[in-house]
Amino acid sequence: MSYGLGIRVDEGLIFAADNRTSAGIDHVSASRKMHVFERAGERFLVLITAGNLSITQTLLHRLNEAQTDSKKSKNADRTLQKAPNLFACAEVVGHALREIEKTEAAPLARHGVPFDVSLILGGQIKGEKPGLFLIYPPGNFIEAPDETPYVQIGERKYGKSILDRTVTHKSSLAAAAKAGLLSFDAAIRSNASVGMPIDLIAYVKDSFSGAVERRMGTDDPYLRTLRTMWNDRLAQSFAAMPEPDWITYRLKNPSR
Amino acid sequence: MSYGLGIRVDEGLIFAADNRTSAGIDHVSASRKMHVFERAGERFLVLITAGNLSITQTLLHRLNEAQTDSKKSKNADRTLQKAPNLFACAEVVGHALREIEKTEAAPLARHGVPFDVSLILGGQIKGEKPGLFLIYPPGNFIEAPDETPYVQIGERKYGKSILDRTVTHKSSLAAAAKAGLLSFDAAIRSNASVGMPIDLIAYVKDSFSGAVERRMGTDDPYLRTLRTMWNDRLAQSFAAMPEPDWITYRLKNPSR
Repeated sequence: MSYGLGIRVDEGLIFAADNRTSAGIDHVSASRKMHVFERAGERFLVLITAGNLSITQTLLHRLNEAQTDSKKSKNADRTLQKAPNLFACAEVVGHALREIEKTEAAPLARHGVPFDVSLILGGQIKGEKPGLFLIYPPGNFIEAPDETPYVQIGERKYGKSILDRTVTHKSSLAAAAKAGLLSFDAAIRSNASVGMPIDLIAYVKDSFSGAVERRMGTDDPYLRTLRTMWNDRLAQSFAAMPEPDWITYRLKNPSR
Repeated sequence: MSYGLGIRVDEGLIFAADNRTSAGIDHVSASRKMHVFERAGERFLVLITAGNLSITQTLLHRLNEAQTDSKKSKNADRTLQKAPNLFACAEVVGHALREIEKTEAAPLARHGVPFDVSLILGGQIKGEKPGLFLIYPPGNFIEAPDETPYVQIGERKYGKSILDRTVTHKSSLAAAAKAGLLSFDAAIRSNASVGMPIDLIAYVKDSFSGAVERRMGTDDPYLRTLRTMWNDRLAQSFAAMPEPDWITYRLKNPSR
């Protein structure tokens, strides 16, 4: 497993992914899970991948191949660089996934390996507002409705609570990034399959280019400050909360 | 799903469970998931159940039946009231589960329903220290090692982060209860299948009786204070944390 996150606020989009790839306990290595498709001034798209690495790598290969091929063919609309809108881009990814399933699913199934892949596709195309899509193994997809400020794939449960408590569409882009990094901190602390470094992309609405991209490891000063401060603050807050007096009473009156 | 939790600290044990039972969206009702087996002065045991309600109710029925029957038979050692130690008690539960599986698993499987049940058994028997066991659908089980202060069943991921940050074996029993309730708060906020009220039992080590038991709903004053204060504190802490200046800089310098 791994963890991928897309956050949408009024100011723009935050994308984040960890870099742990695990093919069993013996084979833990890092692999890039965020992929940018860009046409400066016209579109900025990010695809985050989770699941079987052989499937996600093949998918990326096919999507890039289609872009190269399309320059000399009539299928330009069926690429992430030319599809007319975000919905059509999600269809491009879903279609590519279905083509891969045709050759890969049966051999994998013979070895008991599920066709397991989940994707976040998000970004903005000129003429549209920013959007976030979740794409599933069968190639079907949903768009996050306006009232949903974030989407997650992979090990999403550990870091959900902090997002629910801190992020709304009114949050600043920087606050959304901060919440996203704390969400990853929670997932990394609680689950060995989510690991550093964290890749983060901040996209400013209507910029269509020049997104800020950062890779943050355990030695990143900001991330280190954030993790330490948050842990200290939580410990202080926890200590400051009242305790259930009926338990304290019971301990002081063991005979009752 | 639902959520069950057992915490072990030096002062004693905390048990907690929610009360949501869901057989689909239309049928949401409450059901007791914590069950006490006690012999005053000699043993105090708690069984928390999660999973298919028909299986867990049958299990409870069989365990209680065995206790009644044992008074007139030679199988007294095979009951939760008479088994000589906690390990033997876990065997009693595992054995009962295997007997139920013999008749129930196949009919359920014909309707596509898995034999899904998970259990926490914890408590203390005179002559032993307090212990916590996790019991799985096949009837096998593990004991939580000394360095593990808590065990969870059901929707456990949402509320794991807060436990990892706040509970060690040195925590007071009251602090462990507080952490447990905050863990439930996180699960309830993030997952519709975990619901109020919360049942909580606090057992003082070496007391062998007189555990404190509380059922807390949304109108419980302590729980309400805890939830409100915690949410406020988290929001304050989040706001007080530094934001990534490279995003702030990008927003102020859109041309770069």
